[in-house]
Amino acid sequence: MQEFVFTNPTKLIFGRGVANQVGRETARYGKRVLLVSGKSSAKKSGLYNDVMRSLRAADVSVTEQPGVLPNPRLATCLEGIELCRENGIEVVLGIGGGSVLDSAKAIAAGACYNGSLWDFFEKKAVIKRALPVVTIVTMAATGSEYNRITVIKNEERHAKAGLWNENLFPKVSLVDPELTFSVSPLYTAYGGVDIISHVLERYINGQPTSIVQLRFKEALMRSVMEAVEQAQATPMNYDARSTLLWAGSLACSSIFDTGLSSSDIPAHIIDTEAAGFSDHAHGAGLAVILPAVMRYYVDRFPYTTARFATEVLGLVREEPEVDMALKGIDAFRKWLRRIGCPVTMQALGIGANLFAEIASRVDRNEEGPDREDTLAILNLYRE
Amino acid sequence: MQEFVFTNPTKLIFGRGVANQVGRETARYGKRVLLVSGKSSAKKSGLYNDVMRSLRAADVSVTEQPGVLPNPRLATCLEGIELCRENGIEVVLGIGGGSVLDSAKAIAAGACYNGSLWDFFEKKAVIKRALPVVTIVTMAATGSEYNRITVIKNEERHAKAGLWNENLFPKVSLVDPELTFSVSPLYTAYGGVDIISHVLERYINGQPTSIVQLRFKEALMRSVMEAVEQAQATPMNYDARSTLLWAGSLACSSIFDTGLSSSDIPAHIIDTEAAGFSDHAHGAGLAVILPAVMRYYVDRFPYTTARFATEVLGLVREEPEVDMALKGIDAFRKWLRRIGCPVTMQALGIGANLFAEIASRVDRNEEGPDREDTLAILNLYRE
Repeated sequence: MQEFVFTNPTKLIFGRGVANQVGRETARYGKRVLLVSGKSSAKKSGLYNDVMRSLRAADVSVTEQPGVLPNPRLATCLEGIELCRENGIEVVLGIGGGSVLDSAKAIAAGACYNGSLWDFFEKKAVIKRALPVVTIVTMAATGSEYNRITVIKNEERHAKAGLWNENLFPKVSLVDPELTFSVSPLYTAYGGVDIISHVLERYINGQPTSIVQLRFKEALMRSVMEAVEQAQATPMNYDARSTLLWAGSLACSSIFDTGLSSSDIPAHIIDTEAAGFSDHAHGAGLAVILPAVMRYYVDRFPYTTARFATEVLGLVREEPEVDMALKGIDAFRKWLRRIGCPVTMQALGIGANLFAEIASRVDRNEEGPDREDTLAILNLYRE
Repeated sequence: MQEFVFTNPTKLIFGRGVANQVGRETARYGKRVLLVSGKSSAKKSGLYNDVMRSLRAADVSVTEQPGVLPNPRLATCLEGIELCRENGIEVVLGIGGGSVLDSAKAIAAGACYNGSLWDFFEKKAVIKRALPVVTIVTMAATGSEYNRITVIKNEERHAKAGLWNENLFPKVSLVDPELTFSVSPLYTAYGGVDIISHVLERYINGQPTSIVQLRFKEALMRSVMEAVEQAQATPMNYDARSTLLWAGSLACSSIFDTGLSSSDIPAHIIDTEAAGFSDHAHGAGLAVILPAVMRYYVDRFPYTTARFATEVLGLVREEPEVDMALKGIDAFRKWLRRIGCPVTMQALGIGANLFAEIASRVDRNEEGPDREDTLAILNLYRE
């Protein structure tokens, strides 16, 4: 195991109806709240009314910022920061999926900073302080409710960038599996793929010597694959929804990455740049790019790719390792297709004419692969 | 999955040589430190000198309290509290195994309370505040470095009692696998059994619906069993020592217990009372009592006991489930004997004449089994 520092102070409250605790939990941090949310689904489900009732009962006053979009926009965050300043906001409450939660975190940081929010994403400034963040998550996917990460899209620059900072851990996250009953089969699949990708990217290049971490990841991925299918078949399956949410929180918390190599196989990095050119769902992009990346690096990481085939997908062990690994990748793509994901760049709506530009942008990311590598990866499952 | 609240704010710093960061990390919380330690092993290993150098460099002044014994004594904690008051101590630093760390936590709480420390253990008072605690762990076993628990023995009353409180999470724990190279093969086994027991007690009665949690526990137990044997064969095997420490921290952090039933199969409870009458190592007691408890309750929990046999011990699946379960328990005892643990009460030095008194004491514990159940359990592997 390699050296690491790990800490995660977020208080997770998990179970049926826990959203009703939002007033009490929020009021611990302040009485003036910015409520960040997405489209109208929270209003339809009754969640919105429950939350407002709980906040009122705790004597908390609310400023609303609805309408956060997937691939959350910098412009939206800037509006949120403005609202914080105008209304003397003390706590930011995010209710929604990863985009909403990421926006809430970015707003919380920006509200305590006099410069431009994008400075943080360009590493021109470091977050020293942020307003406290409380979350209610409505989709199992990014794990934003249990980590210190935010990913925001700067539309003007066709750029999407991530940011890590200790001040971005939510103080409290309320996680109710019933709130995800209404997630469609397709978005259940996308969320599941995102969770698997968070785990798999550092599993593939993990050291065989950190066997306990590899096994935790295998347990997580196998359970998520089963739970996606269960939740697609029976949307109100509480245990499947619980598994997806809990696995999602852990997957991106980095608890199982500790002690492993710090560099990933670059599926997220490539999809982040691809998302600058298309509004495909993040999970859809990963369903194409993740297997391509695994295949491209299969000679470098045959041990873990083959382990994935046997320990996660349950295939019968075969020799040589690299053949086992390739069989695993094929089986993984079949499963992705079965749960409804696109498995080619074409199906994603990204033509080969864009590959060169995407590859160049990936190249500019310090942690991303070279231009030629990305091009080869994008071409693997072109159509 | 059942409802839960989970939070763990401890900062874990893990890797070779991290004990040298103790000065910097401690100084964040105060300049006057009580250094709680055990026998002289830290002095022999050079750890003591390294720590003192690091503390001096950070301008931290040290009051020492060495000599904490296994099954840590209330009397020792009371001395520590006195030292805190006399010297205006701001931070408690524990360097050692679980007994030292548990003592450090109890001292930290007692130093901020005007009544008797034992009040907390008798639930006559609740900890509202504690001095910040920093730890350097030298044995993989209790996981005290990453939880909010302390277990202390009141010699006068032949009582050992545990205490849970949010204020008892260490602020920082420094975990260096090299510091455990000198742990003897026998104590490596005892530590491993303690870790497994923390996980297994709530695995056996876990719900099959929390499959992801069961699998995490299986991954952990299997890895610990392998690592115990590796570390016994090669004491300086860094990866095996890393696995034991990391698994130990997670095992008692309750992260994999969340969502499972809150009641345990009662191995720890019974050993805690048995320890009132004998100074056997905690892990040794568990090696006898844990399989006995599993066997006693096998008809109630055949599913998970059989899963333990196949998924952790790697036995070939058989029907009926209960036969599979019994085979697993036998195989587990064989493994315990192989790594050097006692597997009978006699070998533990506890004669049958004491069973009635132990059973009565367990009976008085609200969460413990009835007198007759404990008696039957103790008699299972009497000699």
